[in-house]
Amino acid sequence: MTAQKLLAEGLGTAMLLVGVVGSGIMAETLADGNVALALLANAVATGCMLYVIITTLGPVSGAHFNPAVTLAFALRREHPWSAAAPYMLAQTAGGILGVWACHAMFDLAILQSSATMHRTGSGQWFSEILATFGLLFVIFGGLRSRPDAVPPLVGLYITGAYWFTSSTSFANPAVTIARGFTDTFAGIYPGHIPMFIAMQLIAVGIGHVVLTRLFAEPPATAESRRARQG
Amino acid sequence: MTAQKLLAEGLGTAMLLVGVVGSGIMAETLADGNVALALLANAVATGCMLYVIITTLGPVSGAHFNPAVTLAFALRREHPWSAAAPYMLAQTAGGILGVWACHAMFDLAILQSSATMHRTGSGQWFSEILATFGLLFVIFGGLRSRPDAVPPLVGLYITGAYWFTSSTSFANPAVTIARGFTDTFAGIYPGHIPMFIAMQLIAVGIGHVVLTRLFAEPPATAESRRARQG
Amino acid sequence: MTAQKLLAEGLGTAMLLVGVVGSGIMAETLADGNVALALLANAVATGCMLYVIITTLGPVSGAHFNPAVTLAFALRREHPWSAAAPYMLAQTAGGILGVWACHAMFDLAILQSSATMHRTGSGQWFSEILATFGLLFVIFGGLRSRPDAVPPLVGLYITGAYWFTSSTSFANPAVTIARGFTDTFAGIYPGHIPMFIAMQLIAVGIGHVVLTRLFAEPPATAESRRARQG
Amino acid sequence: MTAQKLLAEGLGTAMLLVGVVGSGIMAETLADGNVALALLANAVATGCMLYVIITTLGPVSGAHFNPAVTLAFALRREHPWSAAAPYMLAQTAGGILGVWACHAMFDLAILQSSATMHRTGSGQWFSEILATFGLLFVIFGGLRSRPDAVPPLVGLYITGAYWFTSSTSFANPAVTIARGFTDTFAGIYPGHIPMFIAMQLIAVGIGHVVLTRLFAEPPATAESRRARQG
Repeated sequence: MTAQKLLAEGLGTAMLLVGVVGSGIMAETLADGNVALALLANAVATGCMLYVIITTLGPVSGAHFNPAVTLAFALRREHPWSAAAPYMLAQTAGGILGVWACHAMFDLAILQSSATMHRTGSGQWFSEILATFGLLFVIFGGLRSRPDAVPPLVGLYITGAYWFTSSTSFANPAVTIARGFTDTFAGIYPGHIPMFIAMQLIAVGIGHVVLTRLFAEPPATAESRRARQG
Repeated sequence: MTAQKLLAEGLGTAMLLVGVVGSGIMAETLADGNVALALLANAVATGCMLYVIITTLGPVSGAHFNPAVTLAFALRREHPWSAAAPYMLAQTAGGILGVWACHAMFDLAILQSSATMHRTGSGQWFSEILATFGLLFVIFGGLRSRPDAVPPLVGLYITGAYWFTSSTSFANPAVTIARGFTDTFAGIYPGHIPMFIAMQLIAVGIGHVVLTRLFAEPPATAESRRARQG
Repeated sequence: MTAQKLLAEGLGTAMLLVGVVGSGIMAETLADGNVALALLANAVATGCMLYVIITTLGPVSGAHFNPAVTLAFALRREHPWSAAAPYMLAQTAGGILGVWACHAMFDLAILQSSATMHRTGSGQWFSEILATFGLLFVIFGGLRSRPDAVPPLVGLYITGAYWFTSSTSFANPAVTIARGFTDTFAGIYPGHIPMFIAMQLIAVGIGHVVLTRLFAEPPATAESRRARQG
Repeated sequence: MTAQKLLAEGLGTAMLLVGVVGSGIMAETLADGNVALALLANAVATGCMLYVIITTLGPVSGAHFNPAVTLAFALRREHPWSAAAPYMLAQTAGGILGVWACHAMFDLAILQSSATMHRTGSGQWFSEILATFGLLFVIFGGLRSRPDAVPPLVGLYITGAYWFTSSTSFANPAVTIARGFTDTFAGIYPGHIPMFIAMQLIAVGIGHVVLTRLFAEPPATAESRRARQG
C-alpha cells in the first residue's frame, strides 16, 4: 500500500461528501420547502460524483471510499487485511474534510454537529441493511459481469436508492460519520450513527454469504477465464 | 436450470419492485401533492434499478424478471419451455417479497391490498399493449444490434415509458400482480390486474410476429455471424 | 431499399412521436400548471426514446426518422437519392400514426388539429436553424469520432435542446408535421409549420457546407482508415 | 495548429454557452420563481451539451473550450505554448457569440451586461478553486484511466457541480467572461469576473502539482504502456 492509494481514498471520499452535503445545502436553500425537489437534486448530484470518482480513482486505489466495501473486499481476500485500517481511516478523515469544505464554500460555520433527529427507527435500520447489501450486490455483481460498468452501476444504484430506501441509503460508515458533522440537509444526529453503522456491518456479513454464491461462476467458465488470463 | 438462476430471477424481481414501490412511497410522501414530481422520481429510480439488475444478473439468469419476457424467449426457443413456469413463479414470488420489504422499510403494514381504482379503461389497456410491445422491441432489437446495451436500453425505455404511455407501463405480469399487494403510489386494484396481464400477453403475441421480421438479419449477415461464432 | 427498412423508419418515427406527444400529454396533465416540470419530463422521455430507437433500428435502416437527416445523407451521397422520398414518406406517415396512438392511449379524440399559437416568430425561426444544425453536427461529428455513441449523442442533445433553444428543437420536418395533428402540449398550429420546415431545410444547407469541412479528416488519417477498412 | 482546430474551439465554446445561457433563460421563464427547478434544468442541459461537444470535437481540437484547461495542458507540455493564446482567444470569442445567439433565439436585446450581483464573496471564490480543481481532476484522471469516458465524466461532473459547489461551478475563464455579457439567469456582474478567473488560475496551479502525483503511474505500468504504444 502506497501513500498514493491513501491519498486517493481520502480525496475521493472528501469529494463524495462534497457531492452529498454540498448538493444538499444548495438544494435545501433553493427548493423553498419542496423536499422532493431537493432530494432529486441531491440524488442526481451524488450519482454524478460517484461515477466521476470511481472512474478516475479506480485504477489508483480501487475506489472503495467506504469502510464497508473495504471490509467486504478484505473478507474475500481481495484486499490485504493489513491495509484495511489505513484505508478506513483515510476514508473517514477525507469524508470529514469534505464536509468542512462544503461549509467553507457555503459560508457556514466549519464545525457543526447535526441535530437532524428523524434518521432512526426500525424501518430505517432495515433500510440500511438492504441499502448496503444492494451496494455490495452491485459492486461484486458488476465486477463479475462487466468490470468497466462499475462506475455507472454504483452511481445509478445510489441515485435510485435515495428514493427506494426509507433511509435514503447511507450504506457507508465513513459517510455516516462525516454526515454527523453537518447540521444541514444531509445531516444525521450523532447519537443515531452507531445503529446505522451496525446495520451496514450486518449487511457486509449477509452479503459475504449470499453474493459469493449468487455470483459464483459455473466451474467451466471460471476454468476458461483462468486459462485466458494466465 | 439451476437454483442459482431461480434465486437470481427472484432476487432481481424483488429488487425491481423495491425500485418501483419504494420510490413511489418516498416520492408521494415528499412531493406534497405534486404528482408530476413524484412520477419523475419514480421513473428515474425504476430506470436506475433496471440498469443495475440487468447488468449484474444478466450473465446469471438472463435477467428476465418478467413472465412476458420469459414467454417471449420461450416462443423463440431461446429459453427452454420446461424452465418457463419455474422462472415465472420465482419472478412473481420475488416481486411480492420486494413489495413487503418496502412496507417494512417504510414502517407500513406488511400485508396490504391496493385500492387504487384509476388503472383501468380502454386507453390504459391499449397502452399496456404498446408498452409491452415496446419493451420486447427494445430487448430483441438490442440483442440483435448491441447486446451489451440491453441494460441501458431497458432502463431508459421504462424511464421514458412512465411518461409516454397512459398506464405508466407496467408491461410485466409479475410486477402487475405484486403491485396489487400495496396500497401506495404504485398500487393497482386487484380486480384490474387480469385485463392488464391479458394486454401484456397480447403484446407478446404481436411482438413475436412483428419483431422476428423487423429484426431478421439479411441472409448474408446471419451467415457470416454464424461463421464467426462457430 | 427493402420493405424492412421502410417499416423501420415508419415504426421508429411513430415511436419518436409517442415519446414526444405522449409524455407531453402526461406531463401537462400531472404538472398542474408547472410548465418547467412538464418540459423536464417531456425532454427526458424524448431523449430516452431517441436513444432506444436509434440503437435498435440503426443497423436496420440507419435510424434517420427525420427527412432533414435523410436529405443530409443524400447530399453527402451516403443515402441513395432514389430512396430519399420513400424514407420521408414512411417517416411522416409513421409520425402521424404515432400521434394517433397517443390519442388512443390517453382517451382523446383521434383526429385533432393543433391550436397552439406561440410557436412562431423570428426568434423561434432562428432557433430552428440552430437546433437542426446542431442535430446534424451531432450526427456527422459522432459518426466521424465515435459511431457507437450516436444514440446517446442524439438522445442527450435533444434532451438538452428542449431547454437551450427557444423553439424546444423540433429540428425534424416529419415531427413538425405530425405535431400539427395534436392539440396537446406538443402541438404546433398547422399554419406555423411551413416556416419551421423552411428553417430546418436552411440548416441542412448550412450544415452541408460547414460540417464537411469541420469534420474533414486530415489526409493521412483518412488514408490509413481506408487502408484499414479494406 | 490549423484553422480547423480554432474553428472547433470557437464553435464548441459557442455551443457550450448556448447550453448554459439558453437553458437558463428557458428555465427561468418557465419555472415561475422555483429556482431549484430552474437550476435542475440548467444543470442537465449543460451536462448534455458538454457530452456532445467533447465527444464530437475531441478528435478535432482536443475539446478544451476552456482557457484554464488549455493552460493546464500547456503546463504539462501536452499542448504547444505557441498555440495557447490562439486557443484562448477562439474560446472567448466563441463564448460571446454563443451568448449573442441565445439572445437572438429568445428575442432579447443582443448586447447586454449582467447586473447579477450575488456571484461574489469568499465562499464562492473558494468554491471556484474547488470546482476548477475538480474539473482538471476529472479530465486528467479520466485521460489516465479511461480516455473514452472523458465526455461523460466532464458532462456529469458539471451537472453535479451546479449543485455541490456554492458558485454553481463556472470553472472556465472564457465561460465566465461570456456570462458577463448576459443579464439573464446565468449572468455574472462584470466587476465580479476578475476574482472568479483568479481563483480558476490558482486551481490550475494546485492541480498541476497535485494531479501529476496523484495520477502518476507506477514505473512498471508506464514502461509497459510505452512499450505497447511504441
